Amino acid sequence: MKEQRNGLLLVISGPSGVGKGTLVKALMERNQRIKMSVSATTRAPRPGEIEGVHYFFKTEEEFKAMVDRGEFLEYIHVFGSKYYDGYDVILEIDVQGAMKVKQAFPDAVLMFITAPSMSEIKSRLIGRGTETMEQVEKRFATAFEEIKMIPQYDYVIINDVVDVAVHHMEAILEAERCRTSRSNYLSESIEDTGR
Amino acid sequence: MKEQRNGLLLVISGPSGVGKGTLVKALMERNQRIKMSVSATTRAPRPGEIEGVHYFFKTEEEFKAMVDRGEFLEYIHVFGSKYYDGYDVILEIDVQGAMKVKQAFPDAVLMFITAPSMSEIKSRLIGRGTETMEQVEKRFATAFEEIKMIPQYDYVIINDVVDVAVHHMEAILEAERCRTSRSNYLSESIEDTGR
Repeated sequence: MKEQRNGLLLVISGPSGVGKGTLVKALMERNQRIKMSVSATTRAPRPGEIEGVHYFFKTEEEFKAMVDRGEFLEYIHVFGSKYYDGYDVILEIDVQGAMKVKQAFPDAVLMFITAPSMSEIKSRLIGRGTETMEQVEKRFATAFEEIKMIPQYDYVIINDVVDVAVHHMEAILEAERCRTSRSNYLSESIEDTGR
Repeated sequence: MKEQRNGLLLVISGPSGVGKGTLVKALMERNQRIKMSVSATTRAPRPGEIEGVHYFFKTEEEFKAMVDRGEFLEYIHVFGSKYYDGYDVILEIDVQGAMKVKQAFPDAVLMFITAPSMSEIKSRLIGRGTETMEQVEKRFATAFEEIKMIPQYDYVIINDVVDVAVHHMEAILEAERCRTSRSNYLSESIEDTGR
């Protein structure tokens, strides 16, 4: 029986500050088959983050120009199509980008990562202590807009305890590999019986 | 945040001899939240199987009469609705029954259990040594008809190594609990922000 099959294209979104990076890092450490796609972002690099390894760091103007020139979708196709080689590919991307990926790759698996509650998101934003209350309010409003998109995602992961959240993500990968829509079992069975 | 939610209604089908009973038993031993629904069957009890505990053993005539009187659907509703109490309920049932359950409970999770290949199914049927070749051929033809129904199921579990197969089943349960369609997160978030 052939075991050759596509990998999974995993799309991850969620409000800033809910720990997406931590979860993705832990997931990849425990699963060597997963490749991280390098995504473009308009935020500033954090300490230790390298251009082209963690993200392509773009200014808002550069990013907008990329999208206008259609480079963003091209980029999704280049990175997204890696999963045809049997690798699982993770794409960390905002809600608008996630919807575009879903259109381009209908069998992508969309996970929304969030904190246990909106109050918790606010506390985490305030807890950072790096932003003014006005900035906190703005980020909180954005988080709320993002959360309204949850029904467009396949799964929601509530990042309360990191290990539990990573376990959920691993379970989702394992379950998705058992989906009948990804299975060759029926066609191989027909071959096997010679019918 | 309220954690009260429905359990899962898990429907399991698959050709005879692929080890459904073994997998369900192992799954239930490892997960105390799962309740087995007592299903009706027309096959003869095996050693140790008790009427009303493992199955309701019916003759073909009795079973047909049950279906004709609408008792079968009634039975599905009584047992199936247990999952509203937060228990996960397993219903082991044939492919026709599974389709009826899916109609009655669209959020039921349908798993199809099978052997690694059709050749393997045949070997297992012959290996039992309890049936004539004619009976083997008949069961094999039935198995093939059942396998054609795989696309109607959500997941396919290939029972090669029992522990691996049970792990897949557990992953599916965990993943299904993270489905956005089963989540109250959005409505609770709206409450939480007072919007």
